[in-house]
Amino acid sequence: MKRNAVVLLSGGLDSATCLAIAGSEGFKVHAISFRYGQRHQFELERATKLAEAWHVASHRIVDIDLAQFGGSALTDAAIGVPKSASVDELGDDIPVTYVPARNTVFLSLALALAETIDAKDIFIGVNSLDYSGYPDCRGEFVAAFEAMANLATRRGVEDDTPLKIHTPLIDLTKAEIIRRGLDLGVDYSLTLSCYDPGESGQPCGHCDACLLRQKGFQANGMDDPVSG
Amino acid sequence: MKRNAVVLLSGGLDSATCLAIAGSEGFKVHAISFRYGQRHQFELERATKLAEAWHVASHRIVDIDLAQFGGSALTDAAIGVPKSASVDELGDDIPVTYVPARNTVFLSLALALAETIDAKDIFIGVNSLDYSGYPDCRGEFVAAFEAMANLATRRGVEDDTPLKIHTPLIDLTKAEIIRRGLDLGVDYSLTLSCYDPGESGQPCGHCDACLLRQKGFQANGMDDPVSG
Repeated sequence: MKRNAVVLLSGGLDSATCLAIAGSEGFKVHAISFRYGQRHQFELERATKLAEAWHVASHRIVDIDLAQFGGSALTDAAIGVPKSASVDELGDDIPVTYVPARNTVFLSLALALAETIDAKDIFIGVNSLDYSGYPDCRGEFVAAFEAMANLATRRGVEDDTPLKIHTPLIDLTKAEIIRRGLDLGVDYSLTLSCYDPGESGQPCGHCDACLLRQKGFQANGMDDPVSG
Repeated sequence: MKRNAVVLLSGGLDSATCLAIAGSEGFKVHAISFRYGQRHQFELERATKLAEAWHVASHRIVDIDLAQFGGSALTDAAIGVPKSASVDELGDDIPVTYVPARNTVFLSLALALAETIDAKDIFIGVNSLDYSGYPDCRGEFVAAFEAMANLATRRGVEDDTPLKIHTPLIDLTKAEIIRRGLDLGVDYSLTLSCYDPGESGQPCGHCDACLLRQKGFQANGMDDPVSG
């Protein structure tokens, strides 16, 4: 019998690839997405399409209002999303698109779901190369979350089998992630990575997410199937 | 200038005491409560009254639907809250009132708030004595959460001053918690601990929370100021 796994699914390129990897490893996939006060809902539409395309066992969209805390360009319309002409202009600092404690909150809710469906595997598509400098996308953060999770739940008290947080993309470049997804049959035209899409959902082409994504497709000798 | 602190405030006896302790230690208190799909809203009313009584700098009630995951008597009306005649009947197992990953989710949201208001102190009223056997009320869980939190946020990358999770009640019995609160002027008539109160908010008197609380007041030679 297939084992349950929880997969965090944003509708972006990384989580779409992560979903495909979890499925290819034989898990029964329960996808979880978040309506957290982000600037646009297009990514949730894409998450729903991806979940359908991969015939997941379940897909939940959880409401959680991070916008009330503010502090990020992704949840506060008053803070602009930075745009650049080229990926070479991206800085090393934590950008204003960082959402305070977002992955901690998302993983916590994934943990709650995992406990109720008796899953001991959670997949998250963070990667530490070609990323945007977010502290909660680093391997050391995920390892610390896993250690905490194993003390937080019923499993930590009653079960010897630890919960595992899978980060299959952690050491891959964007180009390698795309190559892996193409091998698994991911249709990247269903995904959306842009932080600041237009009114009909088309990518802006100049935010960090757009620039990193374009570079990844170019390295694979192809154009981004989603363009502005 | 007073330093900001985030205090988790449920409206129960423990968090009311924790709120008073944070205030007595000179912090500017930002209280956070959760509408998480619990069986009743009375505890949020009490949280609001307590926040007003202690003149907190801010009080947020965050919506987060843990009930959609189920798995607990506190969020699923189909699962009954266990009742006992006496505190001596409480078992050692994790009871059905345990809500999967609740404190992990609550602390994650407190962390998000802390980051946006530049607080490096979070108070949570967990205690490992006279508690109900919940895995996420143990000191080892809180220590692991603190370690994770210090890798999760901007502070973990840019600031040398670590975030601290304060658990001032962790080693106190219920009787000692009440004694401490009375010394600080906590009005326990404003609090509600019951898992399954009646239609007008009166405690049932026989759930784990009621029984532990009664025992604590009795040890202080007094009756619970809130009775059914």
